[in-house]
Amino acid sequence: MRNAVLAAIGDELLSGARLERNAHFMAGHFHAKGIDVKRIEIISDEEEEIISLLSRWVGQTDTLIISGGLGPTHDDKTRYAVAKYLGCGLKADNESYDRILSRVKGDSRRYSYTESVRDPQAMIPELAQTVYNPAGFALGIKFEREGTKVIALPGVPFEYEAMIRQELPEIFFADEKRTASVIILDTPEMHIAQKIPEVINHSGLHVSILPAFPQVELIIRGEPDTVSWAESFTRSKFEGLVLPEGSRSLADAVLIEARKKGAHIACAESCTGGLVGGSLTEIAGSSDVFNGSAVTYSNEAKNKILGVKIETLKNFGAVSSECAIEMAEGARRVYGADYAVSITGIAGPDGGSESKPVGTVWFGVAGNDSSRSVMKTLPGNRNEVRTRAVNFALAELWKEIRK
Amino acid sequence: MRNAVLAAIGDELLSGARLERNAHFMAGHFHAKGIDVKRIEIISDEEEEIISLLSRWVGQTDTLIISGGLGPTHDDKTRYAVAKYLGCGLKADNESYDRILSRVKGDSRRYSYTESVRDPQAMIPELAQTVYNPAGFALGIKFEREGTKVIALPGVPFEYEAMIRQELPEIFFADEKRTASVIILDTPEMHIAQKIPEVINHSGLHVSILPAFPQVELIIRGEPDTVSWAESFTRSKFEGLVLPEGSRSLADAVLIEARKKGAHIACAESCTGGLVGGSLTEIAGSSDVFNGSAVTYSNEAKNKILGVKIETLKNFGAVSSECAIEMAEGARRVYGADYAVSITGIAGPDGGSESKPVGTVWFGVAGNDSSRSVMKTLPGNRNEVRTRAVNFALAELWKEIRK
Repeated sequence: MRNAVLAAIGDELLSGARLERNAHFMAGHFHAKGIDVKRIEIISDEEEEIISLLSRWVGQTDTLIISGGLGPTHDDKTRYAVAKYLGCGLKADNESYDRILSRVKGDSRRYSYTESVRDPQAMIPELAQTVYNPAGFALGIKFEREGTKVIALPGVPFEYEAMIRQELPEIFFADEKRTASVIILDTPEMHIAQKIPEVINHSGLHVSILPAFPQVELIIRGEPDTVSWAESFTRSKFEGLVLPEGSRSLADAVLIEARKKGAHIACAESCTGGLVGGSLTEIAGSSDVFNGSAVTYSNEAKNKILGVKIETLKNFGAVSSECAIEMAEGARRVYGADYAVSITGIAGPDGGSESKPVGTVWFGVAGNDSSRSVMKTLPGNRNEVRTRAVNFALAELWKEIRK
Repeated sequence: MRNAVLAAIGDELLSGARLERNAHFMAGHFHAKGIDVKRIEIISDEEEEIISLLSRWVGQTDTLIISGGLGPTHDDKTRYAVAKYLGCGLKADNESYDRILSRVKGDSRRYSYTESVRDPQAMIPELAQTVYNPAGFALGIKFEREGTKVIALPGVPFEYEAMIRQELPEIFFADEKRTASVIILDTPEMHIAQKIPEVINHSGLHVSILPAFPQVELIIRGEPDTVSWAESFTRSKFEGLVLPEGSRSLADAVLIEARKKGAHIACAESCTGGLVGGSLTEIAGSSDVFNGSAVTYSNEAKNKILGVKIETLKNFGAVSSECAIEMAEGARRVYGADYAVSITGIAGPDGGSESKPVGTVWFGVAGNDSSRSVMKTLPGNRNEVRTRAVNFALAELWKEIRK
């Protein structure tokens, strides 16, 4: 397999009610194996649209993976569309469906529900094969035509993932490194490009430069040897500003650095509401260094849980250098941590003032023998201010632990 | 405008390094106005791919909105591709770019950087017009041909949003309701379909049924009068299980319900690491009822901050009914809240055992005069277990406040 096309079916995706994630997941895995994803398409759940998708790509790509439209309700049309495209009828694959049913034998309510939707969930086009569903109830469909392998799977992400791992296990084996990611802090994207022309202009490499405040991510793709050279070269050029190898995110870098030092960390969050803790704990194994995060949205909670002084809140307000430092020191103390970071700011859309406009965020960092604070005015809407604040807090914490 | 096609350019999207969000954002707004999004396409950042995208859709749709490829680096090819497609050269729109520069006059480092990337960021195809960028530095491009309006914008989400609001203000005006969302708890999707055939089979409606544990979301689309009838009809059929009108999510429903009762809420989180707090505070104005969330990942923190007894942790473990209840009661107490919910479980991939497999999550709910706990074995990987746990916790909190 050299290339693939990924498609997702569903009006909920075209109407903005749901964000497509299956193609994104698969794209990452294909890319890691050097398989070129030619396109991602999101189409509506009309039968003709599905048939037209098949006509468009069968014969044009090695693999076409489709997600969605295999549930039991009226808006699930993939099985009918595939049958029409192949010019055949549908048959029930009762053997596979019975295997699924046997998994819920103990649960009579679920058993009878699953039995009641055997038609259509067990139905497969006569000229296609079944893809067993180890994680859910709808069967998947596969067939080959004109050199293209077509695999149609349910849209529920963990079913999709379980089934594709079963169908294309080779994609998920560890392999040589054809993609390297280098995350660089505090440097504008153009300055990065100017500093490594040898990498940017290398004919055997494809380099994407992706700004994501406060860091820029460089994604380098190509043959394993060249990628490996380009990665070390880039890392050496940005020493001190580059996240350590193998860390896929700032949260990951913080955990790696803390583990290296045998240090424990904690947070105190106001406007980010728990997202710093959420992003650290997204990574399995974070519990060996992350003790916790006190989300203190109200002033009372800042005082009672973190020990921020009433006078500090009265004299300087919750969005201030003083409050940020007391929050960080409080988190360090109550969680018994070595390092703590705090975030207190105005995410908007309301709550801003002339002296503290929306986007004003104070960060506090408490370490072994000192504390400090820093203020940023972050651009964007509520969601973006919060995301940037999470990244900035993690970057500050990382720098502190490395000191 | 009756229909639109949305496209995003970028190898980082096809390689899984970034998740596309601009088309998703725009799709929601178009849909709310009754404009049909025919397709979403993600293509690579090759010049020929961009030209082929334009050839494919110009003349076939009323509007084509493209995001990405307008930055200053080598991988930004949209302006060159559009010029080639239109058969013209590029010109610098210095007037617009000077307007952008004047915004960073006070910041000499940023000023000189921005000036240094005038070429290419101010360059526009001669046969196209400029889209001013009020939030960033790269200019956008627009032109009309064969009845199709083409708008190309930078991929940075808050720049994209600011520019599309400026170009298509009418899409963002409040309007009649062509889409209704009804969120139903504790009912399998097929049972929902069977209970409202009048809505499902209505020829003037398009209904999507989207499972998202522990709720199912029904999205009803059509003409305003029919949608409004269908929404009330559906709500009446599922009374007691349906989230209140106007609440777009469980978090929103919790906040609305708490506000109605004049109650304050708090959380205690272990395996969700702050995501319950994060999802409540995603909503502006949450501070009037949400006091905070204690993320206690370590046992010490559970004891010290929430007052979970050492014996409880020793005798029953952190993932237990007893611990969940003490966490919820502790959060209620330390945050001075009326209601609190707690989450403690095993998100995986490690940490499971025979008696407590990965996915085992205990929830505690503490209310005005009683506490209770409930256990769920949640399917999926670490990320999915955590997401489901967040939803389940919010659903339990919502039910408790409504009591």
